[in-house]
Amino acid sequence: MNFSIQILGTSSALPVTSRFPSAQVVDVYGKLILIDCGEGTQIQLRRFKISFGRIKHIFISHLHGDHYFGLFGLLSTYELLHREYDLHIYAPPQLRVMLTSHCSPVKVEQLPYKVIFHDIPADGGLLLDDKNFTVTAFPLKHKIPAYGFLVKEKQRKPNIIKAAISKFNLLIEEIVKLKNGQTIHREDGTVINPEQVTIPPPTPRSYAYVSDTLPTEDIIPYIQQVNVLYHEATFDNRNEQKALATYHSTAAQAAMIAKKAQVEKLVIGHFSATIQDFDRLLSEAQEIFPNTELAYDGMKIQIPFEKRRV
Amino acid sequence: MNFSIQILGTSSALPVTSRFPSAQVVDVYGKLILIDCGEGTQIQLRRFKISFGRIKHIFISHLHGDHYFGLFGLLSTYELLHREYDLHIYAPPQLRVMLTSHCSPVKVEQLPYKVIFHDIPADGGLLLDDKNFTVTAFPLKHKIPAYGFLVKEKQRKPNIIKAAISKFNLLIEEIVKLKNGQTIHREDGTVINPEQVTIPPPTPRSYAYVSDTLPTEDIIPYIQQVNVLYHEATFDNRNEQKALATYHSTAAQAAMIAKKAQVEKLVIGHFSATIQDFDRLLSEAQEIFPNTELAYDGMKIQIPFEKRRV
Repeated sequence: MNFSIQILGTSSALPVTSRFPSAQVVDVYGKLILIDCGEGTQIQLRRFKISFGRIKHIFISHLHGDHYFGLFGLLSTYELLHREYDLHIYAPPQLRVMLTSHCSPVKVEQLPYKVIFHDIPADGGLLLDDKNFTVTAFPLKHKIPAYGFLVKEKQRKPNIIKAAISKFNLLIEEIVKLKNGQTIHREDGTVINPEQVTIPPPTPRSYAYVSDTLPTEDIIPYIQQVNVLYHEATFDNRNEQKALATYHSTAAQAAMIAKKAQVEKLVIGHFSATIQDFDRLLSEAQEIFPNTELAYDGMKIQIPFEKRRV
Repeated sequence: MNFSIQILGTSSALPVTSRFPSAQVVDVYGKLILIDCGEGTQIQLRRFKISFGRIKHIFISHLHGDHYFGLFGLLSTYELLHREYDLHIYAPPQLRVMLTSHCSPVKVEQLPYKVIFHDIPADGGLLLDDKNFTVTAFPLKHKIPAYGFLVKEKQRKPNIIKAAISKFNLLIEEIVKLKNGQTIHREDGTVINPEQVTIPPPTPRSYAYVSDTLPTEDIIPYIQQVNVLYHEATFDNRNEQKALATYHSTAAQAAMIAKKAQVEKLVIGHFSATIQDFDRLLSEAQEIFPNTELAYDGMKIQIPFEKRRV
């Protein structure tokens, strides 16, 4: 029951050679979703050997080019690869308007697969309700409407204690009932309570993606206690004014949000092309929130299944 | 008086990790023009340390994504870099329609610099008449309207023989007249003919870019005897049928065109993502046209000034 993130791009808008613009793939139980799709995302998908045919859902945080200009190429490539199954795109409404206009760079109506657009409501909300996880959008504070995304595993059922299966000779239908919290009353008078044979399920795992934004505590209710928070840290402390002017965050500000939201781990990214001293950037964040890591293109983050049992 | 080409991308539409899609920069006397602008072109410009502020003219061969999807990011980056001077874009008309529509990914009217669109006429023609060179479009045979480009240095004036300057004590205004073919009649009765003191100028250098197309002899009048021909070679001989079906050329077909056009050198590129045996591809071309090279991302081609004197 994998829950992992692979970061494809960690730079901000201006091009650099060592980092691509924003994009990441979240794998929940083998289902892949793509969050943001900056220019060159399809090249990065190839580089990191991610089967992009497996991506069924794409979430676009906002319509600045470094977060979605890779979509045109990816949609075209899916056509060349003869994709047939639906592709769901969740984005601010303007993307749907653009891609369905007669001037669109990609003629979505003529693709061999169906593109299903889901406009992100102005105040965010639940976007995807999968069997095993949900994706929720929440508003950020940027120059244009922008959204963070919370990917959250659903509460799993309790686990049966292996030794109990043989001890009680549990049948499959009995196991299903016990996992659902039902008590078993056998014909021979035996009573088996769920508490006797199950252990509580692990706490649902969660991942939050926050880029681009001014630091804002408004997002804390959404990202509270997530296992991993990816937060933009476009600038260092020396450029706090620049961050403010461009509606971005510094590493220290990202760390403060992580601290207040009591997240487990913070990963910072979306670095300005002007940043050269990444150690400094990391130190500024770690002074406030020690469990911080610098994102890099190709970084893989596993969220272990067994953490934080209730 | 530099005349050089740097190739930024040599793959065709499907993404590969080692090659970017089509784009190249031609430098004529220090003036840079960009030919095609596939996804990630701005990253390649950075990688190869090309000052993209110096690009004033962009030529787009046709509107398949692997030849222009990098334009959105590049135009946006110019905005972030506070570009102020005009940018000329030469492309099939649909690009202008797209970029000036209200649904365009880049709002060209709101950019701090002016984008001047030049629609390529259906049958091609002279696009740019610079002081030192011209760029001419000529029709190719592809699924959609597509154009090759000929970049040709203008005929230079004859060179003054250095020894003649001191021998005749030539004044600057006399040198100008002599280079213009005028005879000097001095007051002391001395007559100096241009033939006495000048050597003929070198043959104008030229570069032709041909991608994407079926092999077609219709282009030979345009590319005849160019110094360097870049011709697409998407497939090898085994995939000749595939090349035909997709309106592309094989390496051997590209070589045949080079041979018939009596070019000096052939560079092949725009390789299919399926190609693994590049030696084979090169051999197939070299059997027909020995002076063939395989293009690679970052390849720099100098066209020497002194070649082929008349």
